Amino acid sequence: MICTSGSAAYNYAPAVAEAFFQQIPLLLLTADRPPEWIDQLDGQTIRQREIYGKHIKASLEFPVGQQEEDQWFAGRIVSEAHNLSIAYPQGPVHINIPIREPFYPQPDEEIKFDHKVKVIRQIPASYSLSEVQTSALLEQWRAAEKKLIVCGQGVLNEELSAALERICREQHVPVIADVISNMHALPEGGKHADVLLAQKDEDLFKRLQPALLITFGLSVMSKNLKLFLRKYSPAQHWHVQPSGSAADTFQVLTQVIHASPLAFFQGMQQSKGIPSTQSDFAEVWQSEELKAVNYIKTLFERGKVNQPSEFQAVKEVLYSLPDQSNLHLANSMAVRYANLIGLSEKQKRVEVFANRGSSGIDGSNSAAVGSALSSDRLTVLITGDLAFFYDRNAFWHNYKLPNLRVILLNNHAGGIFRMIDGPAGQPELEEYFETRQQLEGENTARDFGLQYMRIHLKSEADIQELKQLLPGFYERSADHARLLEIVTDAPVNTEVFKQYKKLIQQNYGF
Amino acid sequence: MICTSGSAAYNYAPAVAEAFFQQIPLLLLTADRPPEWIDQLDGQTIRQREIYGKHIKASLEFPVGQQEEDQWFAGRIVSEAHNLSIAYPQGPVHINIPIREPFYPQPDEEIKFDHKVKVIRQIPASYSLSEVQTSALLEQWRAAEKKLIVCGQGVLNEELSAALERICREQHVPVIADVISNMHALPEGGKHADVLLAQKDEDLFKRLQPALLITFGLSVMSKNLKLFLRKYSPAQHWHVQPSGSAADTFQVLTQVIHASPLAFFQGMQQSKGIPSTQSDFAEVWQSEELKAVNYIKTLFERGKVNQPSEFQAVKEVLYSLPDQSNLHLANSMAVRYANLIGLSEKQKRVEVFANRGSSGIDGSNSAAVGSALSSDRLTVLITGDLAFFYDRNAFWHNYKLPNLRVILLNNHAGGIFRMIDGPAGQPELEEYFETRQQLEGENTARDFGLQYMRIHLKSEADIQELKQLLPGFYERSADHARLLEIVTDAPVNTEVFKQYKKLIQQNYGF
Repeated sequence: MICTSGSAAYNYAPAVAEAFFQQIPLLLLTADRPPEWIDQLDGQTIRQREIYGKHIKASLEFPVGQQEEDQWFAGRIVSEAHNLSIAYPQGPVHINIPIREPFYPQPDEEIKFDHKVKVIRQIPASYSLSEVQTSALLEQWRAAEKKLIVCGQGVLNEELSAALERICREQHVPVIADVISNMHALPEGGKHADVLLAQKDEDLFKRLQPALLITFGLSVMSKNLKLFLRKYSPAQHWHVQPSGSAADTFQVLTQVIHASPLAFFQGMQQSKGIPSTQSDFAEVWQSEELKAVNYIKTLFERGKVNQPSEFQAVKEVLYSLPDQSNLHLANSMAVRYANLIGLSEKQKRVEVFANRGSSGIDGSNSAAVGSALSSDRLTVLITGDLAFFYDRNAFWHNYKLPNLRVILLNNHAGGIFRMIDGPAGQPELEEYFETRQQLEGENTARDFGLQYMRIHLKSEADIQELKQLLPGFYERSADHARLLEIVTDAPVNTEVFKQYKKLIQQNYGF
Repeated sequence: MICTSGSAAYNYAPAVAEAFFQQIPLLLLTADRPPEWIDQLDGQTIRQREIYGKHIKASLEFPVGQQEEDQWFAGRIVSEAHNLSIAYPQGPVHINIPIREPFYPQPDEEIKFDHKVKVIRQIPASYSLSEVQTSALLEQWRAAEKKLIVCGQGVLNEELSAALERICREQHVPVIADVISNMHALPEGGKHADVLLAQKDEDLFKRLQPALLITFGLSVMSKNLKLFLRKYSPAQHWHVQPSGSAADTFQVLTQVIHASPLAFFQGMQQSKGIPSTQSDFAEVWQSEELKAVNYIKTLFERGKVNQPSEFQAVKEVLYSLPDQSNLHLANSMAVRYANLIGLSEKQKRVEVFANRGSSGIDGSNSAAVGSALSSDRLTVLITGDLAFFYDRNAFWHNYKLPNLRVILLNNHAGGIFRMIDGPAGQPELEEYFETRQQLEGENTARDFGLQYMRIHLKSEADIQELKQLLPGFYERSADHARLLEIVTDAPVNTEVFKQYKKLIQQNYGF
């Protein structure tokens, strides 16, 4: 990311924080005035050194001089910044670049780049386990009767996914994978943990309680999973990550294993063939998963929840989503609905992106636009009205995005606040939590030349229209991005969501 | 400013930097998760302690506990933060507020506020000069034959303005006051320094050269003034400010006087009646000022610059601006045009606001909206297309603003980059400097219920239409804010601006 001096650098800050917590490599090059002009009331001059505070892996600065030593130094800084950003844990690195006048070349001046730039190559650490370490862990692994694996947020990684699939199939270890973990390929993956753990059944929870919990990756979405594991806590919790101290998400962490998740699971693979000591543990998880999947599939059938809502809309959108897509999910309800519904094995090459590092609404459109610009894949964003309009200037550029599709769930408010018990009961709900708003997407579509479609979901016929519309909507267009606005009513969405939860508590209302 | 935890706090950062450099008191209350949940991959949890880095006067944090000592401590923190934000130099102060669950009161819970909050009153320092100090300064003041006063950015201050007016009238000291200094009341104020110093006349510049330069306030806009004073530098430069080290804007600073500008100028007032040793210095400045004023008034008359442009539009807008208005000027061309045109003595109660602390385009609409919400005055914003659309979500709220008027100068690009020599000559001009864009304001007006008017300035008739429209445009409306979009063509604006500069160099083309 490259910007001019002044407040421009601060406009990147929310994205820098998100990248820091999501461990996304990022190089930030900020132009600056030279040090002698800082604090002299000159235009576009702020204090840019270390401007990203504690959300940056390193904050470096170019020398302001132009001598040979300075050039060597600048080259070394670039090399170091690049290498640091991609070393574990990946993350943002900042290079501040003070520039003395003249700022612009003369009309006839040719700018030459010296190709003798210092490049320090970096061979990445393998973060593997020694045989001795593997043996010791395997012994405990085999001894643990009830093992449960929970995947945190991560990028699409087919090798890791395959290794986990083998463990899951061959050793019958249940694996819980939120949609943001990008583990859609897992066949018996507990993609619906948040659904099945919404049941109120203490006996069931005791049967689901693991003895050994293994986690890797970043944040976990399911609130029900967090509450479950904190209450029905495992005797041991191993977290696998290459280095550093780990977050204690479930407040039960007993051991951090410094290795790559791939190396770890390949190590545990050696347990294959040895008779499993697992009881019916995996079967309980699997049967609950199947019940949850079936429930979600049939949730909106007549007699259960019969009012069309944004929940149902997201179901249709995900069920018809082509494989090999980039799927961007905005906070807060879009990503939650998507996680409740889940992706299927047939969509295993879909890569899911979501701001779950700091869970802000900032820049969701921008991330999708950047993704569409830098990829040939179909890029689909599912977002709500607050996140969408907050960042609509993401479309304010002169590039064509025929592969971008935006699905805007417009309930004219921050709908989540009606869904969660705390704010829903407060007198400030509408003005200060929901912040009801009147915008619809048509004017924005007109401003930016997006092909615009709108459905107001009120009846079953509207759902049918949505279903028929989606395949064509996803199809590649000649020129333009497309915006599909799905308008729903916040009270109906809330009612449907309450009904969804109530039915689960009644054993899915079967 | 009050926000939730997470990236919300970073969304304030550009405004915090602006407030810091513009010395605007600001209290930032950011909700946070408690310290034990930081870095645990929980939602909306970033590292908020000291998040505003070097752009904050202090970063404080509430205790997380609820004991009596904690309450006393929290009260003390609020008191200190408030007092610090309004002590010289005024500025932003941050209080981070970690909150443990439960986040919401129970449905039947009544929230009681303890009125025994600790309030530490603060009597502001007077920053006055002692008699001995005043005498010593007066001696040098009287001895200096050619004194020049330059006012930096400041708030509307009638007492200071009156003190300066007396010095100016009684002792014939020329005063240079950019439009952002809010010294519109000054009768012979050098409000057109940037115009008159655009002449190429070394003899004149020598006659304008001061022996003693006195400055106060914050940033100075005129580039020509900066270049002039750096080249024709005074033997002495006093900067008057209450405390701390001062910016050396003109690179000639010799003495910082730690006093309030009012106390200083009241002290120098004692020089009244003593025969002035000033030569014709004041007369030269005054006559040049009058020439510049006359030039601006007649600039667009037939035969000089006869193509209607945004320069001319800003002239009409300012000439008809009612007194007692808040005038917000966005970066970069809007505030520059306004400074070239200036406000008249009849508009001495207009208060001008502009982001000249860090000179960003961020939040110009927001500042005007906030100003209109918190004041009964007519609030007028003059802005360009980039600043306007970048911050259009400023209008995304549910409050009525019948006193807000927005004048959008739309040239479909960052027009300034065609005006300044450096980027204008680069092959990257259109794509990377100007960033040409197609938006117009109508869809935004429709989105937010602004009364919308549009004029495409092409002919003298369009200028007449603008003149006729303005009085009604400024009139109080029943309900709605009004948006007047003035569309111009970037190449014409550039041509007019070049012609404006050329005519000055030819002794105004008289």
